[in-house]
Amino acid sequence: MRVDGRAYDELRKVSMEKDFIKTAEGSVYITVGDTRVICTATLEDRVPPFLRNSGKGWITAEYSMLPRATQTRTIREASKGKLSGRTMEIQRLIGRALRSVVDLEALGERTLWLDCDVIQADGGTRTASITGAFVAMVSALAPLVRNGTLKSLPVKDFLAATSVGVIGEHACLDLCYEEDSSAIVDMNIVMTGSGQYVEIQGTGEETPFSAEQLAELLSLGQKGTSELIRLQKEILGEDAELVGAAQVKKEASEKA
Amino acid sequence: MRVDGRAYDELRKVSMEKDFIKTAEGSVYITVGDTRVICTATLEDRVPPFLRNSGKGWITAEYSMLPRATQTRTIREASKGKLSGRTMEIQRLIGRALRSVVDLEALGERTLWLDCDVIQADGGTRTASITGAFVAMVSALAPLVRNGTLKSLPVKDFLAATSVGVIGEHACLDLCYEEDSSAIVDMNIVMTGSGQYVEIQGTGEETPFSAEQLAELLSLGQKGTSELIRLQKEILGEDAELVGAAQVKKEASEKA
Amino acid sequence: MRVDGRAYDELRKVSMEKDFIKTAEGSVYITVGDTRVICTATLEDRVPPFLRNSGKGWITAEYSMLPRATQTRTIREASKGKLSGRTMEIQRLIGRALRSVVDLEALGERTLWLDCDVIQADGGTRTASITGAFVAMVSALAPLVRNGTLKSLPVKDFLAATSVGVIGEHACLDLCYEEDSSAIVDMNIVMTGSGQYVEIQGTGEETPFSAEQLAELLSLGQKGTSELIRLQKEILGEDAELVGAAQVKKEASEKA
Amino acid sequence: MRVDGRAYDELRKVSMEKDFIKTAEGSVYITVGDTRVICTATLEDRVPPFLRNSGKGWITAEYSMLPRATQTRTIREASKGKLSGRTMEIQRLIGRALRSVVDLEALGERTLWLDCDVIQADGGTRTASITGAFVAMVSALAPLVRNGTLKSLPVKDFLAATSVGVIGEHACLDLCYEEDSSAIVDMNIVMTGSGQYVEIQGTGEETPFSAEQLAELLSLGQKGTSELIRLQKEILGEDAELVGAAQVKKEASEKA
Amino acid sequence: MRVDGRAYDELRKVSMEKDFIKTAEGSVYITVGDTRVICTATLEDRVPPFLRNSGKGWITAEYSMLPRATQTRTIREASKGKLSGRTMEIQRLIGRALRSVVDLEALGERTLWLDCDVIQADGGTRTASITGAFVAMVSALAPLVRNGTLKSLPVKDFLAATSVGVIGEHACLDLCYEEDSSAIVDMNIVMTGSGQYVEIQGTGEETPFSAEQLAELLSLGQKGTSELIRLQKEILGEDAELVGAAQVKKEASEKA
Amino acid sequence: MRVDGRAYDELRKVSMEKDFIKTAEGSVYITVGDTRVICTATLEDRVPPFLRNSGKGWITAEYSMLPRATQTRTIREASKGKLSGRTMEIQRLIGRALRSVVDLEALGERTLWLDCDVIQADGGTRTASITGAFVAMVSALAPLVRNGTLKSLPVKDFLAATSVGVIGEHACLDLCYEEDSSAIVDMNIVMTGSGQYVEIQGTGEETPFSAEQLAELLSLGQKGTSELIRLQKEILGEDAELVGAAQVKKEASEKA
Repeated sequence: MRVDGRAYDELRKVSMEKDFIKTAEGSVYITVGDTRVICTATLEDRVPPFLRNSGKGWITAEYSMLPRATQTRTIREASKGKLSGRTMEIQRLIGRALRSVVDLEALGERTLWLDCDVIQADGGTRTASITGAFVAMVSALAPLVRNGTLKSLPVKDFLAATSVGVIGEHACLDLCYEEDSSAIVDMNIVMTGSGQYVEIQGTGEETPFSAEQLAELLSLGQKGTSELIRLQKEILGEDAELVGAAQVKKEASEKA
Repeated sequence: MRVDGRAYDELRKVSMEKDFIKTAEGSVYITVGDTRVICTATLEDRVPPFLRNSGKGWITAEYSMLPRATQTRTIREASKGKLSGRTMEIQRLIGRALRSVVDLEALGERTLWLDCDVIQADGGTRTASITGAFVAMVSALAPLVRNGTLKSLPVKDFLAATSVGVIGEHACLDLCYEEDSSAIVDMNIVMTGSGQYVEIQGTGEETPFSAEQLAELLSLGQKGTSELIRLQKEILGEDAELVGAAQVKKEASEKA
Repeated sequence: MRVDGRAYDELRKVSMEKDFIKTAEGSVYITVGDTRVICTATLEDRVPPFLRNSGKGWITAEYSMLPRATQTRTIREASKGKLSGRTMEIQRLIGRALRSVVDLEALGERTLWLDCDVIQADGGTRTASITGAFVAMVSALAPLVRNGTLKSLPVKDFLAATSVGVIGEHACLDLCYEEDSSAIVDMNIVMTGSGQYVEIQGTGEETPFSAEQLAELLSLGQKGTSELIRLQKEILGEDAELVGAAQVKKEASEKA
Repeated sequence: MRVDGRAYDELRKVSMEKDFIKTAEGSVYITVGDTRVICTATLEDRVPPFLRNSGKGWITAEYSMLPRATQTRTIREASKGKLSGRTMEIQRLIGRALRSVVDLEALGERTLWLDCDVIQADGGTRTASITGAFVAMVSALAPLVRNGTLKSLPVKDFLAATSVGVIGEHACLDLCYEEDSSAIVDMNIVMTGSGQYVEIQGTGEETPFSAEQLAELLSLGQKGTSELIRLQKEILGEDAELVGAAQVKKEASEKA
Repeated sequence: MRVDGRAYDELRKVSMEKDFIKTAEGSVYITVGDTRVICTATLEDRVPPFLRNSGKGWITAEYSMLPRATQTRTIREASKGKLSGRTMEIQRLIGRALRSVVDLEALGERTLWLDCDVIQADGGTRTASITGAFVAMVSALAPLVRNGTLKSLPVKDFLAATSVGVIGEHACLDLCYEEDSSAIVDMNIVMTGSGQYVEIQGTGEETPFSAEQLAELLSLGQKGTSELIRLQKEILGEDAELVGAAQVKKEASEKA
Repeated sequence: MRVDGRAYDELRKVSMEKDFIKTAEGSVYITVGDTRVICTATLEDRVPPFLRNSGKGWITAEYSMLPRATQTRTIREASKGKLSGRTMEIQRLIGRALRSVVDLEALGERTLWLDCDVIQADGGTRTASITGAFVAMVSALAPLVRNGTLKSLPVKDFLAATSVGVIGEHACLDLCYEEDSSAIVDMNIVMTGSGQYVEIQGTGEETPFSAEQLAELLSLGQKGTSELIRLQKEILGEDAELVGAAQVKKEASEKA
């Protein structure tokens, strides 16, 4: 039995509220158990210097936690004057993951900023951020398709992330903070709607892990991400149908 | 008529949700029109170096805005590596205001951190922060009275803040962002439950203002803060009765 | 009686030496009691990015204290690598105050830097800075009128600042450091030559203050600033006549 | 065929020179093809604050590249005044990996600093750093066993790392820079002498990858790290025998 | 003939005003031609960590220029958030020079801070700083001798500095800014009252210089510093007699 | 006798390995006794803003030490987030010294970066850096002459540096770390192939020094640098002949 009574392969309760922030082009308030993240998507009509005049767009992410998202107050990175290694690592991961399902040429010379701000943290904040940011991104881009600015949604596939880990002798899905602290192996998995891997980051800091354990963890990750993607589709409603449509057409024409 | 149809002396719709963040000792989610702020209060059992062994406590505030709280994305201060002058000025104001109604000796050697994070901004974020932080502070301290750690609540009086300003020829209460941008005089007023001034910050950057205009603005400020304090009492429920109780007793005994 | 024997409504001895620094376009060495500040004005033929091609100019201020301006040595902000909140707040105030009496369109696309460096501090350094910076500003701009670069001085009115406060039961004008430390209410007032308010910043950190106290403080502020402005006129000599001249003409033609 | 004529499952030429830096307790100069890294190990008789009086030691890593390690000059992080996200991510990885094979309690209250400085970069600098740092670490600790300060080497197992990736349609071992730039999937694998995983970091930024591709990459990683560990044993000579000895004894006594 | 009509071996007009800043233990306002520097000396009853419990004192210097000390405004180092290499080099030089004539053991566990703030710059600011800081230092220490805290002044000899350089074909003493800009060789010389060298820093960035030129420059430096030291003695009055007295006694007793 | 048995006027064993780093345009691995420095030269086809469209080039140097170059680990400046005063002083010295022998107009609008990274430090790291950087610079520029991009090498003369100092009563050449620590006078001398001075930096922090001592030190410096220059010529081989050739021609034509 897990600390909160869940089965080993059970996600926590997940909810997503779209358009939570009026001022942003896209936004989602995602809760995964007691982990709560505000994700916003900002569209900007220019790209970083290294992409100017390339015809390609860019996606970049920033991640932060409010000081009292955690059980004890965490000093603000703005007050310390620099980002921690953990924050940098997470925001690099989020950006990389989102870029993997976007056709940056089809996006055109635009930058999409994904801001993930954790207001309450109970484990899995980076994976909740990815799952929520995906919905915020589609919400921000869909109107461009509907108003004809973009011919089709430059998003090739769905994308969600979850954490898995070994606690005691059990491989578990979607660790809460208490579980995460006692896990001997800890892995974040980012997968697409078609069940492929985008990112696997597994660490056995306490104990190295075997090929068998790895296989078990990967299978839990697959189950979790596919459930999250089902939820994303529900939340996105009509917009969900835009995802991958261009890709299907493209592949069809390539075959023909 | 004002941009949103309000009367010149009318506050926007205000709501406060207590205990919004599970992980904090006290918290409030305050909305003033479209301005939305998460205020948390953290109690720490130590004080800054300059107060060690003084028997006195300290109250300090930090203020921040999520990047998409604003109409266009604002760069994070954590990414820039330093706080802006505006942020510093606001957090100094919030801390100073809250300290003015607290008996720091009665608080004992504790630090109270008040974090005000604006998730959506439509003018008046600093005054909403003060009004919300007051409730978060009382929420964090009341349990110490109920469990006997403190003999009485070290909070001497209620405290709320609002903005006032001159738009065209009219003195107006509680400016939204659009009004704030076109105001020729702009003033923040912090007042106590007994109707005294804690802080007055008025600026006539566009046009200097006369003594008559000042009087009108002060009177609007009085009206606004007293309404906000009525709301704080409602939200705080039983805890509201703890505010000022020690003070009353103290003054009574001083008279006797 | 006050610590230095002054009457409650009496300024300290004030002197201003114009053209103190040869290398600057305008400069003043102002002393207010033992508070001594070097104010320089620098004219630059360009404006910050947000004003480019707007036809408007800009005024910005920087404030600093030498390490031994204070009784005990203060660490340099250059050594700490960042400005304190206090410094930022003061330099924002000085810039805002000076801008309030300048017609930025008439200034044209120029930036005026006002540097206020406190070499000895005994209370009231920010108000002395404003009073001195006004004179340095006029000194830097007047030659542009005399040589025909500007048609008229873009300065609409005189401007001076002083501090007032409540010490014990008395409202006092122009607090020295010792008084400032024991004041229960502390207020900085910036006023124009025509007796209007530009900035009021009052704080009752120790004790909130009443409307009566406020009225008394405002009246002292009026007295102090009008005396300071008389002195500015004396120091500026002929240049004083350029102040407000354009304004008077403009208003006259508007009436006609 | 690969750009440098290697087979798909072939490592580049690897060499390690022990005791390269006289001033350090342990040091290795590792070359993997044209990638050249100086690894030093420093022993310090104290631990970071969070471990004081815990009886446990700590291992931390720092990673840097000389400006001309790369084809075009890279600006120094010391000149920019901050570490890049990439550097932080790499040094966190190196530290975490090394800690996974060390018994921190047996190490006692000591900190082991592992500095990895890349003097020439041609892909795989983080994995070469881990492989080299392991040898530097054993070199620094072995004398403490020989002189009786430590009862046995607190290193539980060997540890090496390599990169693998998919280039075109082929899974390849140990990518050089040119290959790395064109890889569609890129993975770093850290493994122990007993063939278990310590860290798996795989990214399909260009294209998500399938379970089959993952399996192929993991198998190449296993081959590469086991060859590197054979080399580490050669270089370490007698000291190699100290690795894991305590562990074997401990497990034996636990069984008995 | 030089730009200002001086002879090649002539110093500019030098003045020093002692006790210029009331708040400091020692202070001097030194002017060398149009170069004007405020030097203050601060005594602190503790030493940096590396000297704790050593019985020895320390002397450290900080140097800065007001933004309008120069012909065009220089950005504040406090605003940029870091000291320039030039500033660091100069303050290291000032500290080192002053320490060379102080018996740090006789000073006891005290730190002497020497702050040199240039308010107007016309070449030779670092040498004027050294010459002025020496007087501020003696002024700060002499009272400790007079009140018996120190048995004798821990200052072994006088110390002054000047710049010399080659302009066109002439070796010149005490370069003003215009001369300094066109000098092909530039040298700063710090010497003691007994005519020995403390610091020689000569640079031939434009053209390397010969042994003959070097000899000529050194001789000018000797002339200049001995004149400056004569002036220091005048300014210090009675306190001048305390300089070196302990040294003379010590050497006498060593001989005996 | 010296600590390592050398004669007072004897250099340590010096070696230079050219083209040590494949990725750089020029590089040298210089060892002076146990001091070991990697010097690289980078050519960039643009100049800093202050030289744009001037037709002139620029030379700039950066200097750093690996953390374990020293007997105890030194914290990285990149981790501290700023360069120390010592580092800034040294890199300013290296750049200035190298510029003194280069015809920046003949170099054209190019920047030459000289990176000196100390991997093991035993005294004299700044002088070894200068001596090595000279060779790296010539190596980077010579191909431009051979391929016709430059008409002749813009290097006017050879350049080398050494340290000298007074230990006890002896003037010594090329101090190792142990000697440097006990020297009462310490001097760095940079000289050209024609025996002229480029830079003299002498400090008598412990004891001021006399004109006689100075003469002795200068003569040792001359001996040391001329030996180093002989070695540079050997290492540079054919390229050595390019040094100064343009200068000779130019002077000849000026005479004619």
